Amino acid sequence: MFATNKILETKLLGFLAEDVGQGDATVAAIIPADTNVEADIVAHESGIAAGIEEIAVLAKSLDLKLDANVADGDIFKTKQVIINLSGNARTVLTAERTILNLLSRMSGIATATNELTEKIRKTNLVTRIAATRKTAPGLRFFDKKAVQVGGGDTHRLHLDDLILVKDNHIAIVGSVEDAVKKARKNASFTKKIEVEVKKPEEAAKAAKAGADIIMLDNFTPEQIRQTIELLRKLGQTGKVILESSGGITAENILEYASTGVDVLSLGEITHSVKSIDLSLEITKVI
Amino acid sequence: MFATNKILETKLLGFLAEDVGQGDATVAAIIPADTNVEADIVAHESGIAAGIEEIAVLAKSLDLKLDANVADGDIFKTKQVIINLSGNARTVLTAERTILNLLSRMSGIATATNELTEKIRKTNLVTRIAATRKTAPGLRFFDKKAVQVGGGDTHRLHLDDLILVKDNHIAIVGSVEDAVKKARKNASFTKKIEVEVKKPEEAAKAAKAGADIIMLDNFTPEQIRQTIELLRKLGQTGKVILESSGGITAENILEYASTGVDVLSLGEITHSVKSIDLSLEITKVI
Amino acid sequence: MFATNKILETKLLGFLAEDVGQGDATVAAIIPADTNVEADIVAHESGIAAGIEEIAVLAKSLDLKLDANVADGDIFKTKQVIINLSGNARTVLTAERTILNLLSRMSGIATATNELTEKIRKTNLVTRIAATRKTAPGLRFFDKKAVQVGGGDTHRLHLDDLILVKDNHIAIVGSVEDAVKKARKNASFTKKIEVEVKKPEEAAKAAKAGADIIMLDNFTPEQIRQTIELLRKLGQTGKVILESSGGITAENILEYASTGVDVLSLGEITHSVKSIDLSLEITKVI
Amino acid sequence: MFATNKILETKLLGFLAEDVGQGDATVAAIIPADTNVEADIVAHESGIAAGIEEIAVLAKSLDLKLDANVADGDIFKTKQVIINLSGNARTVLTAERTILNLLSRMSGIATATNELTEKIRKTNLVTRIAATRKTAPGLRFFDKKAVQVGGGDTHRLHLDDLILVKDNHIAIVGSVEDAVKKARKNASFTKKIEVEVKKPEEAAKAAKAGADIIMLDNFTPEQIRQTIELLRKLGQTGKVILESSGGITAENILEYASTGVDVLSLGEITHSVKSIDLSLEITKVI
Amino acid sequence: MFATNKILETKLLGFLAEDVGQGDATVAAIIPADTNVEADIVAHESGIAAGIEEIAVLAKSLDLKLDANVADGDIFKTKQVIINLSGNARTVLTAERTILNLLSRMSGIATATNELTEKIRKTNLVTRIAATRKTAPGLRFFDKKAVQVGGGDTHRLHLDDLILVKDNHIAIVGSVEDAVKKARKNASFTKKIEVEVKKPEEAAKAAKAGADIIMLDNFTPEQIRQTIELLRKLGQTGKVILESSGGITAENILEYASTGVDVLSLGEITHSVKSIDLSLEITKVI
Amino acid sequence: MFATNKILETKLLGFLAEDVGQGDATVAAIIPADTNVEADIVAHESGIAAGIEEIAVLAKSLDLKLDANVADGDIFKTKQVIINLSGNARTVLTAERTILNLLSRMSGIATATNELTEKIRKTNLVTRIAATRKTAPGLRFFDKKAVQVGGGDTHRLHLDDLILVKDNHIAIVGSVEDAVKKARKNASFTKKIEVEVKKPEEAAKAAKAGADIIMLDNFTPEQIRQTIELLRKLGQTGKVILESSGGITAENILEYASTGVDVLSLGEITHSVKSIDLSLEITKVI
Repeated sequence: MFATNKILETKLLGFLAEDVGQGDATVAAIIPADTNVEADIVAHESGIAAGIEEIAVLAKSLDLKLDANVADGDIFKTKQVIINLSGNARTVLTAERTILNLLSRMSGIATATNELTEKIRKTNLVTRIAATRKTAPGLRFFDKKAVQVGGGDTHRLHLDDLILVKDNHIAIVGSVEDAVKKARKNASFTKKIEVEVKKPEEAAKAAKAGADIIMLDNFTPEQIRQTIELLRKLGQTGKVILESSGGITAENILEYASTGVDVLSLGEITHSVKSIDLSLEITKVI
Repeated sequence: MFATNKILETKLLGFLAEDVGQGDATVAAIIPADTNVEADIVAHESGIAAGIEEIAVLAKSLDLKLDANVADGDIFKTKQVIINLSGNARTVLTAERTILNLLSRMSGIATATNELTEKIRKTNLVTRIAATRKTAPGLRFFDKKAVQVGGGDTHRLHLDDLILVKDNHIAIVGSVEDAVKKARKNASFTKKIEVEVKKPEEAAKAAKAGADIIMLDNFTPEQIRQTIELLRKLGQTGKVILESSGGITAENILEYASTGVDVLSLGEITHSVKSIDLSLEITKVI
Repeated sequence: MFATNKILETKLLGFLAEDVGQGDATVAAIIPADTNVEADIVAHESGIAAGIEEIAVLAKSLDLKLDANVADGDIFKTKQVIINLSGNARTVLTAERTILNLLSRMSGIATATNELTEKIRKTNLVTRIAATRKTAPGLRFFDKKAVQVGGGDTHRLHLDDLILVKDNHIAIVGSVEDAVKKARKNASFTKKIEVEVKKPEEAAKAAKAGADIIMLDNFTPEQIRQTIELLRKLGQTGKVILESSGGITAENILEYASTGVDVLSLGEITHSVKSIDLSLEITKVI
Repeated sequence: MFATNKILETKLLGFLAEDVGQGDATVAAIIPADTNVEADIVAHESGIAAGIEEIAVLAKSLDLKLDANVADGDIFKTKQVIINLSGNARTVLTAERTILNLLSRMSGIATATNELTEKIRKTNLVTRIAATRKTAPGLRFFDKKAVQVGGGDTHRLHLDDLILVKDNHIAIVGSVEDAVKKARKNASFTKKIEVEVKKPEEAAKAAKAGADIIMLDNFTPEQIRQTIELLRKLGQTGKVILESSGGITAENILEYASTGVDVLSLGEITHSVKSIDLSLEITKVI
Repeated sequence: MFATNKILETKLLGFLAEDVGQGDATVAAIIPADTNVEADIVAHESGIAAGIEEIAVLAKSLDLKLDANVADGDIFKTKQVIINLSGNARTVLTAERTILNLLSRMSGIATATNELTEKIRKTNLVTRIAATRKTAPGLRFFDKKAVQVGGGDTHRLHLDDLILVKDNHIAIVGSVEDAVKKARKNASFTKKIEVEVKKPEEAAKAAKAGADIIMLDNFTPEQIRQTIELLRKLGQTGKVILESSGGITAENILEYASTGVDVLSLGEITHSVKSIDLSLEITKVI
Repeated sequence: MFATNKILETKLLGFLAEDVGQGDATVAAIIPADTNVEADIVAHESGIAAGIEEIAVLAKSLDLKLDANVADGDIFKTKQVIINLSGNARTVLTAERTILNLLSRMSGIATATNELTEKIRKTNLVTRIAATRKTAPGLRFFDKKAVQVGGGDTHRLHLDDLILVKDNHIAIVGSVEDAVKKARKNASFTKKIEVEVKKPEEAAKAAKAGADIIMLDNFTPEQIRQTIELLRKLGQTGKVILESSGGITAENILEYASTGVDVLSLGEITHSVKSIDLSLEITKVI
């Protein structure tokens, strides 16, 4: 995901404006207009940094000098200073919470994602960990970017970039076969077609109908193995990507990964984010 | 928090547009334009409903019929149908994820907040549970509204509606007394003045300087009691509101509340939200 | 491409506002505020209708009654009344040009696309005609939708929905193989990977590297045949989609299509649009 | 037409954001973040440059260095490098299509306009070539600016800057005389009043009623001459500007111009644009 | 000035959103969500109504029922109820101030303008009273519309709808003649050309150079008479419109008008507005 | 009130864009693109400067050099040059009116406010002069900032930052006591509660109910004194802030202030602004 800085700047200033309202009443009342400060952004727990690139764009827009001690994707430790920020005191204090809110959320997502991807990596498996569209409203770019920084796969970014036929679609269309057939006919050849299935037999139908990706919805590891075996018998393996979704946790993830499924997708890494505890501390008044 | 429907509609359509991108490729490819459906939004865990009013605004804007079986603030149970939705099939399917993402997040916040406020209520204490500005960027209204639905206090909505002097401000101004003095002189008489303090003695200084609210930052319950005792000796109780912030959890909250502090504020209820598991299921195709 | 009406409405009102400026000076000066009219939108040449759905959204938003005599994708003849519109006279006259400009452009794109797709269809070939990203700035949705209405394939909608490695990318990365390898590793599994090649041998490299789609850039029909033959020898046909781009015109399109290439893409259908000549004529003053 | 750079920048970044979506997936996957490139924008056909000023604003906004070898209004030849661009490789590649789409369209409009204005100029006639409001939705500024660069007259920019009474208005008001009378009474004295007429006699009525400009709608050159003769007899020449609209092409334009009509307006130069074929080629990787 | 309701609605909801912030804290705290009310908007001084059409658009958007007892341009008396409003109590109270602020300002402008235009009308003079571009930032449409409602002329709406050469332009171009010559050559034939002059002799130069309108800047009535006399001698009257600007007040306006000048323009009617005193009073709680 | 420059820039460019429309037709026609100028902004009457900070942000955004000879809050005299501006001639001329309109309005508000605050200050009274929400739609920030620059108190900025119970609220709730009780229960502890009363006895009720601020609506100085006396008897003074509103003018303000009331609020300083007469004069052409 690469958006130019100017496009990001617009979104970031929107977040700041939401917090500022008609103006920061505290700094206007008690902080002189021409004071400058240096400040540290300090981690109070360890994690994986994400949002550094975005905060750098915001800082530049606000005429603040930013030196990052970690890059996106780097590990930081408890008590580590991850960013030095300096510039006008009112601006630093007014932007403090917007900066921390974004950085804490994005780093929280990257850290949770990375915990999962590292587990997989250590076993030498190649299973991908993927996000879903269960992101916070308005934060699609930032949530997905953080997943990617944590080593995960962004999955769909919009409703326009993949045909994903779910149970609700099939309830209307009638069958997996018809849905795939219609999708292949009507959708652009540039899109992959994914189908959500509830049982191994449906996976076989979807594969035969020509799905590029099959989402095994709420399958147990055992059911996933059965599905792979069934597809092997039908000569459908290698052609289709298998994605398992539902019921996967940090605890059982290796059990799922070891089935040989290609992708494990989890809504939790974006819909139930645990923010990383960060704070901004003024270190020098100039 | 009351914003008229039209103001909410603009924000909600922005969330939908983010998800839609250039258009839902799946429904366009396989769902007939004139199919209508009925659908249920079902809870897969119990909780406190929030976001119902907002989703009703979005549904109306999209010409969908919505019947809510629960109102904001009501308890729902696992497997309960909380909303019936009907209308154009493409529209229902395109809006499904936006609806669920907002409803799950808001209900998650309300449920977590309510768990805390109910603990307090059952003890007949009157301690308030308050949120902070640690909301997801762009979601200030929705996160704060959900806190309120869960029985919590919204605290500040913008940087413009309360003077809140924190340690970083004092690092520049020099002393609690000077900060309060300047705030009283320069800020509007319509704003309260809150000061963050690190030790009981600072709380005393802040009270004497005329703070309306004192935030006891990372105080233990024992330190809170000492502070209240100190203020009592100084004749400052009754005039000032005491807010405790930092280190408070669902486990120790009654210990904190029993100190007699007025407000307990927690960043976690908005920065580390656990979404409620909800799904939309089509029940009838027309 | 399906975007809900409310999302379209915002874009369409933006187009109207651009034309209105601070207000329509002519109707304000000479047309009574409470006059109503009936009007016809008449075609002055034959073509394929596109934009009808969009104009219906705009008309509803403006409280105008619209009856369309043709649906998107239908053929209309010279002098045919394609839409009846009625309502407030000032509103009809103020919106006239915005309505016609969009309808004329979209119908022009659909008509040009349809001319090509019909040529293919009549030969019983299944070659797809596709658009490119050479759309008018700000009109991506409308230009692509019109291509689709005309029977064409939208191709990419954004830079986020397909990996398309072009010569400029390869100039930086170094080789087709490296580019595909990096793309496969770093991009989401939900995206297809397309590679632009200049010679049959490069097509072979791209296919072996695992490209999902190969764009044969400025190939003659003869070179396309050589490429298909080469891929057949290498056992790569059937796995990869071949797209031919550059030099294709209405005159030579069957020559290209008969090579067996899967997709023919043309920038002209969106970057050099010939608008359909339509006018709005008031038929009754009420 | 002069709008400050910052106003243009907002529009141009909107065009870029439309193309980028949630981010350029290709450059993010395969182009290193810190690579720099030099690139040429090359013409593949000759024409008149337009959009150079606008692209310079966009390049500056994106921190790209731009050197233009031609200015707006200059002639360029086939194979000529019209712009050198350098900077971050990801940014260049992400912005490539937005830059080319705007430049190709604007140069196409300027070239088509210039072909007409040059024909006139070579005959020493002073007839003006003017555009209409038949511009692409959302591109009013850019289409009109390109007309001007090509030597044409922008005509109306909004519905607010000229009173233009067309047949549909007269159908409601009743007569040319009443329309002009009402316009003169109710519209600002700062606006000219133009009336569209279908016959020479109506032109006489409009002139007598005090129209500043008369649009001769679909008049043949012979009818235009009759109209001028009629106005001369009535002593109305010199006071009123005559504009001929409808049926004018590159082939017959001198025939129209030689009638002595003041202005020839053509919808085609903006509603049926033939884009100039331009490409961006990376020349150096740094 | 006629802008469709939907375009107005967007601007009006922007004004409301500015006032609401994150939500009306008072109604949320104390007014039941389902209470309905009837309310009167009452005038506390007499004047000319303006803004009624705009407020009707806002009321409809907010699902409030509005009955206006006066139309735009009508006279209202002290204590007169000008509007009856009914609907949801929270909505009425939240929108109250936005409604009154706009209505009071627009009616204030219309009343002040009308005072001047009535003075002229009673003398049977036909001098026009015109506004300038000295409107409140962001309120161009509303301020100019109110001038028009009060019987005044809007003058320019944007910098794009009239060529107005002022002293600062002439300081750069060098002379009135050169400025008019360049304007005639480079500007669209659809625009009038106005020139600001400081002395009668300059007015003569401007007229001879072909200006459509001459602004007599800070001329006394005596100087205006001299100018008209000078132009008469030169045979330039009848062709050019004379506008007097600067130093005109309600007291001396007839003295200016009696000179025979065509237009009197005053910045005061929009830059120094005296709002009409209006209030909203709830008359019934349902 | 402190909003970062980038947030201000967006608002200011919006004001400029409103004035520019599709482009400044005059400068485009007659001013060379590469001319530079120096210009003075000159005061034609004395006053208090406000808006200097905002105009500096706009100038920087437009690449103009600005040197201010006065700071916000400073006194300027008739004929004083308050700002020197230099840069591109077209940009200076295009932005001239937007700059002057904002500066004239803000300085007008600051000057009127300052006249009142100075009267108070000279008597050694400490009464505050406060604004209301009667600001021009869309100009809340600028109007309130100007009040503050003039020495006044901004009062509420949004409907979200103070509970203000007015007569219309009480008409629904039933009594002052109930309103305050509900507000105290339902509103955030971070907000003050203000109640509007019509009679001294109601003020007593409000004070006893726990209001933080009491607005004495349309009280005479005598009634204010009675109220203060009554509250003194009830032991309520010192706890509650008294604000007098209605009927206060520059003439009688000291009479009101001498009653000992804490705050005097006036709608006039923002709803009926007299702009300061400023002009921009080009002093050098380069």
